[in-house]
Amino acid sequence: MAEPLNVALAGLGTVGSGVVRLIETNAELIARRARRPIRITAVSARDRTKDRGVDLSGYAWEDDPLAMAERADVDVVVELVGGSDGPALALGRKTIANGKALVTANKAMIAHHGIELATAAEQNGVALKFEAAVAGGIPVIKGLSEGAAANAIDRVYGILNGTCNYILSTMEDTGRDFADVLADAQRMGYAEADPSFDIEGIDAAHKLSILAAIAFGSRLRFDAVDTMGISRVLAADIAQADSLGYVIRLIGMAGIDRSDGTPRLFQRVRPHLVPFDHPLAHVDGATNAVVAEGNFMGRLLFQGQGAGDGPTASAVVADIMDIARGEKGAAFSMPAGELEAMEAAPTGHRVGRSYIRFVVADRPGVLAEITAAMRDTGVSIESLIQKGRGEEEGSVIVSMVTHEVPEQAVTQAMRILEGADSIKAAPLVMQIIEA
Amino acid sequence: MAEPLNVALAGLGTVGSGVVRLIETNAELIARRARRPIRITAVSARDRTKDRGVDLSGYAWEDDPLAMAERADVDVVVELVGGSDGPALALGRKTIANGKALVTANKAMIAHHGIELATAAEQNGVALKFEAAVAGGIPVIKGLSEGAAANAIDRVYGILNGTCNYILSTMEDTGRDFADVLADAQRMGYAEADPSFDIEGIDAAHKLSILAAIAFGSRLRFDAVDTMGISRVLAADIAQADSLGYVIRLIGMAGIDRSDGTPRLFQRVRPHLVPFDHPLAHVDGATNAVVAEGNFMGRLLFQGQGAGDGPTASAVVADIMDIARGEKGAAFSMPAGELEAMEAAPTGHRVGRSYIRFVVADRPGVLAEITAAMRDTGVSIESLIQKGRGEEEGSVIVSMVTHEVPEQAVTQAMRILEGADSIKAAPLVMQIIEA
Repeated sequence: MAEPLNVALAGLGTVGSGVVRLIETNAELIARRARRPIRITAVSARDRTKDRGVDLSGYAWEDDPLAMAERADVDVVVELVGGSDGPALALGRKTIANGKALVTANKAMIAHHGIELATAAEQNGVALKFEAAVAGGIPVIKGLSEGAAANAIDRVYGILNGTCNYILSTMEDTGRDFADVLADAQRMGYAEADPSFDIEGIDAAHKLSILAAIAFGSRLRFDAVDTMGISRVLAADIAQADSLGYVIRLIGMAGIDRSDGTPRLFQRVRPHLVPFDHPLAHVDGATNAVVAEGNFMGRLLFQGQGAGDGPTASAVVADIMDIARGEKGAAFSMPAGELEAMEAAPTGHRVGRSYIRFVVADRPGVLAEITAAMRDTGVSIESLIQKGRGEEEGSVIVSMVTHEVPEQAVTQAMRILEGADSIKAAPLVMQIIEA
Repeated sequence: MAEPLNVALAGLGTVGSGVVRLIETNAELIARRARRPIRITAVSARDRTKDRGVDLSGYAWEDDPLAMAERADVDVVVELVGGSDGPALALGRKTIANGKALVTANKAMIAHHGIELATAAEQNGVALKFEAAVAGGIPVIKGLSEGAAANAIDRVYGILNGTCNYILSTMEDTGRDFADVLADAQRMGYAEADPSFDIEGIDAAHKLSILAAIAFGSRLRFDAVDTMGISRVLAADIAQADSLGYVIRLIGMAGIDRSDGTPRLFQRVRPHLVPFDHPLAHVDGATNAVVAEGNFMGRLLFQGQGAGDGPTASAVVADIMDIARGEKGAAFSMPAGELEAMEAAPTGHRVGRSYIRFVVADRPGVLAEITAAMRDTGVSIESLIQKGRGEEEGSVIVSMVTHEVPEQAVTQAMRILEGADSIKAAPLVMQIIEA
């Protein structure tokens, strides 16, 4: 058997402890499949005394994570510190500069600094891998960059945030409101104490920007993701969607827009309506799923556990095993310098159906006002439901589904209605995904 | 840019032509992702004059596929001749013996001779790859052997034959009978003129045996797959299953049975009942899907196009690109000599629920006879439906779902009823997959 591959772990939270447990539990299997043993040599975390449920006495301890990058007995540093900058980024840079491979689950760091790190990794001839950064235990980065590598990919989209999917599918099952379900999710540990990264769609946007770069060979553009979270989705929206044949899911969607000849990058994270007969409509709870559409393979779906210690550790160790087998790969499926810089695509001319929900005063003439605005902007209405009362006394909820129209027409209609005093809250517009 | 990788194609049917089209269409993208161009140098097929819709004039033509393995301008031979033995196997052996890499979509050859070919490839230091042999365009071999590599996999199962899935889901949608839908499928080219490999489950068994070897690190045992096809499934079965909350799918399922301490290999291809809330229940038409359950990642699902020129070519070229990047891998995720030889698991003690369907004479006492046999073998009945007439005059259809019982109890009950003259046809027993 070949020499062991020596690994240092920086960060021993849930995922870090999971990685230790996995490498110990499956040691023999890992060595057979990687053709050499994977050995943890050093670990680092903030608090040495904390009980993490795993025995760390066999590993060297470093208080300073940066020290990992200096150790002669370390080939690979696994960064699980978290945060887009700060100690995580310092460790990532130093690891690569010192000629060691970097494995990370840190989507924020990759979304913000992935090109810099990938370029440095290429210059230093070391691997940079981050399978665990997107969709936890699902090998979607490998799936896109190797499995689907022969395809021009037109579109990649999916359910990238387990917390939001848990909240939306629980709202769906129970009829309860967002705030109520979120509070429960926080109590049970499915949502962070500060849940804004998840529920505002930032976390999904990090992941989407990484997927887009790999799928399209485009330069990573996290700054250009059009992002809206799920906090404005009402129980009433879910009920209306259901009666129309849809579920509501937070979908990250990316594609290449070639409508005027120049390829432009379309990236959007938003709640969408998904028809019952689409595979993503059956993705419940904390599960993640990613769909990629290629010019030869057609539609490919990956689905699995998007978070949690076991699934995330599974992805981290798969990366380490690739490195053990000498597979360096390119972090974004091709050298960073070859990724195509693209402008963000304008979205106004995109044609599709939308769901629009209004909370309006319960008095005559309101529907006439809304439908007139639609008529004047050329938005034709496929179905309209007025059913259920708003939270505010004397308000009712009106939902509609448009026919296929350019998105800018819907935006114009909303602009006309802005400030109408019969409309009690900003309307919620959600795109509909076609099966 | 590095030197091109030179590829020869043996076999220019649908898939072979698809590979030519893919390599030409996506040439630039492939070169960027593989870090070198992929160049077809030679092709071979039975009939040189046939119009295949692709221009072959730029490639050397060989009438004899074996000549590919001799050419100095060939690094990789892609075997698309088909058949478990004969010219395909001869070409596979010669390619490897001559120190060239072998890529194949030939599930029958790999199921029968995979260990021999993998051993030879290791001895000669060349790659043997067959992503396209299982589930067409879905990168499930890469997904299991690399993406899920850190996991001990307990169970792998899925929908592995698009023809059967097309027939079953069409029967479901239309209420039509098997023979009728099969005839249509043959007319439309979804089923072969001789469909027995597909509908009797042989094709799925080939694929399952390959998946099992990779997932479990067990020696390939195609001979030990317990196989039953779909030709006995009636429209009435599909209707009864539907009323009970299930669809019927041909499922290939493999696992490791450790019930008496010695690991044994369980492999079965059979129509199963799949509950509506299981992801496989929503896999319709010619789509394939594979579920793998790992000890850290949990449940992982891959879904996509399991056949057709585009998807299969996508998998073939992904293998070629891996070879272009210098990734040799081990054909079955670890050296062939390390794969564990396992006996086939006995299935009698497996506990689960079953669906059993009888076609019986429509006269008093028949139900009493059946239920007495169940009682005497300890098979308790969860639900029973008698509804609809059999094809034969005076016959009716009785379906039941058992509680969880050992399979051997059901087998015993069927044995007691064997030859009862009130039972008009051999009962059909199908296992139920739990969500």
